[in-house]
Order: sequence, then structure tokens, then C-alpha cells
Amino acid sequence: MKIAIDAMGGDRAPAEIVKGALAAAREWPDTELVLVGVPEAIEAHLDGSRPSNLSIHPASEKIEADDEPVRAVRRKKDASMVVAGRLVREGGADAMLSAGNTGALMTTGLLVVGRMDGIERPALAPVLPTLDNVGVLALDLGANMDAKPEHLAQYAVMGSIYREKVHGIARPRVGLLNVGTEPGKGSELTKAAFELLEKAPIDFVGNVESRDVMQRNCDVLVCDGFAGNILLKTMEGTAGAMMKELKSAFTSSLLTKLAAAVLMPGLKGLKNKMDYAQYGGAPLLGLNGLVVKCHGSSDAESVKNAVRQARIALQARLIPTVAAEIKGKEVLS
Amino acid sequence: MKIAIDAMGGDRAPAEIVKGALAAAREWPDTELVLVGVPEAIEAHLDGSRPSNLSIHPASEKIEADDEPVRAVRRKKDASMVVAGRLVREGGADAMLSAGNTGALMTTGLLVVGRMDGIERPALAPVLPTLDNVGVLALDLGANMDAKPEHLAQYAVMGSIYREKVHGIARPRVGLLNVGTEPGKGSELTKAAFELLEKAPIDFVGNVESRDVMQRNCDVLVCDGFAGNILLKTMEGTAGAMMKELKSAFTSSLLTKLAAAVLMPGLKGLKNKMDYAQYGGAPLLGLNGLVVKCHGSSDAESVKNAVRQARIALQARLIPTVAAEIKGKEVLS
Repeated sequence: MKIAIDAMGGDRAPAEIVKGALAAAREWPDTELVLVGVPEAIEAHLDGSRPSNLSIHPASEKIEADDEPVRAVRRKKDASMVVAGRLVREGGADAMLSAGNTGALMTTGLLVVGRMDGIERPALAPVLPTLDNVGVLALDLGANMDAKPEHLAQYAVMGSIYREKVHGIARPRVGLLNVGTEPGKGSELTKAAFELLEKAPIDFVGNVESRDVMQRNCDVLVCDGFAGNILLKTMEGTAGAMMKELKSAFTSSLLTKLAAAVLMPGLKGLKNKMDYAQYGGAPLLGLNGLVVKCHGSSDAESVKNAVRQARIALQARLIPTVAAEIKGKEVLS
Repeated sequence: MKIAIDAMGGDRAPAEIVKGALAAAREWPDTELVLVGVPEAIEAHLDGSRPSNLSIHPASEKIEADDEPVRAVRRKKDASMVVAGRLVREGGADAMLSAGNTGALMTTGLLVVGRMDGIERPALAPVLPTLDNVGVLALDLGANMDAKPEHLAQYAVMGSIYREKVHGIARPRVGLLNVGTEPGKGSELTKAAFELLEKAPIDFVGNVESRDVMQRNCDVLVCDGFAGNILLKTMEGTAGAMMKELKSAFTSSLLTKLAAAVLMPGLKGLKNKMDYAQYGGAPLLGLNGLVVKCHGSSDAESVKNAVRQARIALQARLIPTVAAEIKGKEVLS
């Protein structure tokens, strides 16, 4: 099993990416890791030691965080991200990871790696934080802004298989993000999707509301990319604003500062809980190969965790399983 | 100026509704208030004292919180909410308030009070909490699940006028809820709406992201009812989950309990800040008359606040102003 890693993408690339790959290579000697990027930049962080299952594949360019995705992927043909995608398409790797520009990675998935047969739109599927720390796999969280009912049904099947194969949750409960829990609620899109989801080969638990997501009201949350983006960014914004308010309440006097110090350990847990980056990489599902988006601020530990996930997905034959499940299912097309 | 109040709607009706109306009648002797409902039930809370500007209009039925909205409004022709709507339509009142079933109130607005000329879809416009306690008027937050670009442009104009006339904010900044701040971002709907909003008679500040709403990134936030509902319920859910976690961190030991007691005053402020119910009633804009939805759990104070808002709106000639602004504007239809 071979995993290509975009060594140049992410806020802390290449240093943390290379360190994470190094740690992963040592932990799993059966897995071949390929660092894609500028060889000298990568070697500078290898400290001269390189396990035999870690190799370098040269790529001279780099996609920047503020590059326009489609143009960057089309023009920078030797960018580390694009080269890693080409390795997956041509069989030189079974999976790729990148902490780089999200839009560019989705474009690489679509234009370089290629869509899976029967899938019109791939979906980005990160894990949202929940109070019990288990998380909810949510998709699509931004790969496509507009969705048709069939797309949501495909997201549901792909998310369900990923949750079971990679996260080990048997019969994951799939919920449809909606404005009320009763059947018949919602937009034209969710009403039509509800009917397809009832017939899909999944454990569909019906409509779920965004206010209950942190209570883990389902294991897989299905939504269009627009609604998913609103959900994710509202969680981030609300948690951030409350943390800011807490901080100001805590530092208003010497007494409150002392009191806050006592509470700090408990509050640190809360802060970590709200940080969805800790849940590791988000797969881009619906492609002819495994593509994993790591958080932009990923450090060595996150990279190693993403490799762990990718290994599990490959061992569990995620992509062929999804392809077989999608193929020929009328409700899904 | 005459305001009809649904005395039977809301979790604390009729007691708190009647008390609120009584207080408002005393505070504003120039305003006629009409309590609509079962006379005996209303009189029981008047304590025998009734200012001359407070009257009772009988209605024998009541719409329940779990009634199916359209059916209830159609069948219960003598329900307090429906009768209040009829007063507005027939000129017996200039405005109506209700803390009852939200769906039924929207149906009453549409079927009984009637749409304003040129408006295809009325919008529900509550104020979302912000850290500076000023709030953001957001619409539509659930009256219509699907919207067309023209609807969003109409929401923008109506919200902008309400914010200026009723909340006293000169040239309110109007933002379009979207997945990124750059123009060209978003769904087909938001892309098309963006172009209309640029031509609309408002101070359009472009796309805004849900993560910045609590920082008051605009004064009027425009979105379709589905996205608005996701936004509102995610704010509620995230704040509620964090409060729960805080509580458990605070009560884990005697020491943390003592520390928490020191911090309590500061934290209470945070809790109030997150409670969007405190911002009073939400107008249903786009009707031939003023209809205000009060929070289901409204007490006398909230009812009085809603009367205050309705008075300001009527004095400022909100409805005729909106009607004149909408009429004949091509970009809005």
C-alpha cells in the first residue's frame, strides 16, 4: 500500500508534513510513503535519516493558499498537489493526503484523480465535534454549493460506508440536515432527498436539526455544501465568540483571574472539544482513489493521524466497496 | 393607533400576555390595545382594573402549539390569532402581535392579513445575538424554505427599512449570508442574488460569513429560510452545548464550585447575550399590515417590549414606506 503526501501544502509545510511522514513511516513499515515536493526542501527536514519505506517524488511547483483553485490546478502542472493526484490516477499511489488549498485539492480530485463511476459530485466529509468526542461525519461540507436529491443520497451511502469501514461504527445512523425533525419538513431539495434516503441501503434515521448535532443525533450527517458550510462556520463562530467572552469575564479582576486558574483544566477540555481540526483529515469521497484533506494548520501529529486513517481505509478496501454499492442502484442516480 | 394582541397564544398565555398589555396600555395612553381571546380568561388577569385604551375582542377558539398550521388557520375561524389577523385586514387594527404557533402565524399573515403588492414571499425577521448586544436583523429565518434571487433582494429592502425606521440605525449595512466573502462565491441562488443586491436601494456590503455574525459583520443579514434556520439553530445548539460543558466543568469539585461562584456574574451576562429571545418580537415583513411574532415563552415584559416596537413601526409608517420602496422597482421583482 502506497500513500502520496503533498509535502508542500499547509501552513506548516514542509517541516511538519515531513516530520509526520517520517513518524508514520517508522510506525508502519508495511506502508510505503511518498513525499511529493521539492527534494531539497524535503531533505532539509529528514535529518539525513530516511526509512526504506519513505521516498521522495520530485515536484517543482507549489499551489499557494490564495491561488484560484481551477486555474492553479490547470496551470501548475508540476505542483506537488497535482503530481500527487497524478500518482493516484496512474496507479503510482493508492491514496494522497494534502494540507494545502482546499479548493485546489477538490479540483485536483475532480480533474486529476477523476470521479468514480456513477458519482456526479464528490463530497468533502470532515468530522464535526460532538460533546461525547466521537464526532459526526458530515458531508458535503463545501465541495459543491448546489446539490440535487440524488447527490444527497450518494453522499449518504458514501458517508455510511466510510464511517463503518474507517471509524468502525456498525450500522451508522444517517440523518438529513433539515429545519425540523418531522418528515415533510424543509426545502424542495430536502423533501425529495428524504424519499430517496428512505429507499437507500443505509440506516436512515430521518431529518435532524442543526441544534442537536453536538449531541451526536446521528453518525453521518447529509447536507448540501452550502448548508454544510453555514453549519460548520456557525459552530466555529459561536464557539469562538463565547470563548472570547469567557476570557474577558475571567480576566476582569484579580479575583476572577484566580478563579479562572482553578477552572482552566476543565475549560481546556472544552476548547479542545470544539476544535474540529483534532478529528484529523477529511476524505473527499466519490473519486477514483482516496484523497484526504488535512487541516491547513496540520502538524506532524495530524499528518501521522491522517496516514493512520488512510491506511485503515485502504486495508478496508473503501473505494472498491463504495464503487460496488453505488453501481446500478437506481435510487442513487 | 390600534394594536391587536393574541391573548391566547404562547406558553404563558393568557396571564403574562394580559399583564404585558395592561402595562403597555398604562405606559402609552395614546395607543389603543385590543386583547383578542376568550373574555372570561382575559378578565381573570385584569384584576378588575382596565384602562380605557385597553379593550377585549372576543374569540372562542385557540390555535395550539402542535396544530398543523395551514389546517388550523383554515378550520379554526374563530381562533384568537385568526381573529386578530382579520382585525388587521379589515382595518380594525393597525398591527397584531402573537406569541403563538409560529407556522400558524405565518399562515395567518399570508392567508388572513394578505401579502403586500409586489411581494411574493413574506419573511420572518428576528434579531440574532451579537457580542456588542446590538444584534443583527436576519431574514428570512424560516417563513419560506426556498427562495428566488428576487425574494432575497426584497428581504434586503424590507429589512433595511425596518432596521432604520424601528431600530434607528441610519444606512444599515446589508450582508448576504454566503460561504465566503469574495464576490462570485456561493450557490446559484446567492450568486444571482448578489447581482440584484448590488443594484438595490440599500447599503450592500457584500457576502458575509456565518462565523462572523456574532461580531456584527452587518446590520441586516439576508438569506433563504433554510439557511437562516440552520444558522439560528446552530447558534442555539452550540451555545447550549458549551453552557452545558461549562456547567459540568464548574461543578466537578468543591474548589471549582467556589471558583465558579466568583465568575457567575460575568457568565450570566454571557448567557443573556446568547439568548436571542431578549431582543423582543420578530416582524413578519411583506404583509399588508404589521404582524409581530413574539417568542413562545414571552412574559409580560417581552409583550410590553413588542408593543413598544410595534408603536415605533406604526409611527414611522413602516408598511407604507416599504410598499412605496418595493413598488415599481424592477430589480426587486
